[in-house]
Amino acid sequence: VTPGRLMSAEIAEQPEVFANVLARRQELAAVAARIFARKPRFVLLAGRGSSGHAARYAKYLTEILLGLPAGQVSPSTTTLYAAQPDLNDVLLLAVSQSGGSPDMAEVVEAGRRCGATTVAVTNNPGSPLGSAAEIAVDVGAGPERCVTATKTYSATLLALYLLVDAARGGRGGTAEPLPELARATLDAGIDAVSEAVRRYRDGDRILCVGRGYSLPTAEEAALKITETSYLPTTAFGGADLLHGPIAAVGATTMALAICNHGKALAAMNTTVDALNDRGARVCAIGSAAGNAVADPRIEVPRLPEELAPVLEVLPVQQLALRLALSRGGDPDSPRGLRKVTRTR
Amino acid sequence: VTPGRLMSAEIAEQPEVFANVLARRQELAAVAARIFARKPRFVLLAGRGSSGHAARYAKYLTEILLGLPAGQVSPSTTTLYAAQPDLNDVLLLAVSQSGGSPDMAEVVEAGRRCGATTVAVTNNPGSPLGSAAEIAVDVGAGPERCVTATKTYSATLLALYLLVDAARGGRGGTAEPLPELARATLDAGIDAVSEAVRRYRDGDRILCVGRGYSLPTAEEAALKITETSYLPTTAFGGADLLHGPIAAVGATTMALAICNHGKALAAMNTTVDALNDRGARVCAIGSAAGNAVADPRIEVPRLPEELAPVLEVLPVQQLALRLALSRGGDPDSPRGLRKVTRTR
Repeated sequence: VTPGRLMSAEIAEQPEVFANVLARRQELAAVAARIFARKPRFVLLAGRGSSGHAARYAKYLTEILLGLPAGQVSPSTTTLYAAQPDLNDVLLLAVSQSGGSPDMAEVVEAGRRCGATTVAVTNNPGSPLGSAAEIAVDVGAGPERCVTATKTYSATLLALYLLVDAARGGRGGTAEPLPELARATLDAGIDAVSEAVRRYRDGDRILCVGRGYSLPTAEEAALKITETSYLPTTAFGGADLLHGPIAAVGATTMALAICNHGKALAAMNTTVDALNDRGARVCAIGSAAGNAVADPRIEVPRLPEELAPVLEVLPVQQLALRLALSRGGDPDSPRGLRKVTRTR
Repeated sequence: VTPGRLMSAEIAEQPEVFANVLARRQELAAVAARIFARKPRFVLLAGRGSSGHAARYAKYLTEILLGLPAGQVSPSTTTLYAAQPDLNDVLLLAVSQSGGSPDMAEVVEAGRRCGATTVAVTNNPGSPLGSAAEIAVDVGAGPERCVTATKTYSATLLALYLLVDAARGGRGGTAEPLPELARATLDAGIDAVSEAVRRYRDGDRILCVGRGYSLPTAEEAALKITETSYLPTTAFGGADLLHGPIAAVGATTMALAICNHGKALAAMNTTVDALNDRGARVCAIGSAAGNAVADPRIEVPRLPEELAPVLEVLPVQQLALRLALSRGGDPDSPRGLRKVTRTR
């Protein structure tokens, strides 16, 4: 068996997966109409691991594009502490690629009992999570065989974007070029990604930084790299980094900065300056990477800021794959992990 | 100047600080009455760094003890993206020890314009944050001169607990023994803390893990250690750890597990088992540390689970202080940090 064969294939599949998700725009718009007919006043989002990052992306979408206050759920308040909040007027949206973790199903069941409109966004609508929710949204990425999630993550982001865009009266038009742009991004990134791998391979720590819509990308980068390369990797929002952890940054720090055109760019540039000031070796990924004080700079085609996370995660996945292979690991089956994580 | 002199003195001050906060119970109860007379339906919490961890503690308190759905705010949705959600029926509670970061004041000002009841919990009620909020709660920890926050963190937790306890009709009685227990904890921990320092000193990464109410303690531990010892230190909730990052755990991983009696203990034990299975060297802190498969075990007197975070952070602070000193640093002024972090 060739290490990384599955991960490599599933990364390459994403342009096609995006086309498939886009082809289901009408179906997703119908689901959005059904959800938002309830006129939720608050949105609660649940998810763990990569799905937690997707949930955080959805939090930015709902707050910024829909003007709805939103928060991420701590599943333990339900699963361990049996809290029973009043969830009338609340939309509870749970994300899980497998839909198989007992805690997510439990959170949704409890939310339903407490009056919430419950929605599951999962790549397996027939799963316990899909069955527990009033409304199950099929991500439709096709079966994912690699333990390390790639195409289910990006497809989940796209499905969430299309739901929210439909809720604000959009028709997902800005997402149309995604399949083509994804293909170009995957092809173009190879050289710069290989250069990043050369730099990161012998690093002793990697810091992933993003802001706003791109914070989930930084978090996903840290998780992908940690679970496949076993390197100590941490993600921070740009501002939170400056509130303490920046003190630990020095010449042995490898930093991965997600730099996009848009409203977060000036604040992100401040963060990259702070990293450079402390001697960190910064690699940049994103549509604004070309202007970042970084090396290498992995540029990604420009999209509206709220859609950028769907595209910018592709070189992140390529980087995680190649870094793991260069360190002798097999990212298809990281040690000690399974496809469905059963937690409470 | 003796390194760590300020941090050491302010750690030692905490029993007295707790007594001072407890003496203001009636004042805090009056503030709680004023806040909850508005009958908020949803609570949003804001904070960065240590104050972000305190905000997360308050999130557990409001969800579990008050049955109110709660979420943590991403300040950037206001400061960068200018989102204007409908915040009627929303309580927006912002935490900041200095009250001086522009983003927190901006979040509160925007929240107020959008209809929220705004509350600032700060050690400096005359600060921009205190002035921006409709209601300013004085933490009352006295001036903190060390850049690394210690007494303002624990005092903020206690003030938040007393506010929430008053809102559910309590009178803070269970918190009464805190000054005495804090003194005993500080005295008793020294030997075990020194042993933990010996083990961690040459580690190449530290993983801090907690669940439920004790997750903020794990996050605070990671931040304290990172900002004073410059070691790569990451915090995870026990369940999130199992969704990926556990793959990176091996024989060179030092783990700090916060283990408390209470509803999260069984789930936390599962996490400690997983860490031991992978060869990590686990140190435990908390009221249930004595039963953990860990060495050293730093026991803390047992309190109701929701109050434990106020006490269990004391040996965490001692550990961060001594680890920094043993590595030749000065935790009173970590490189590149200031007392007030100005972010947007």
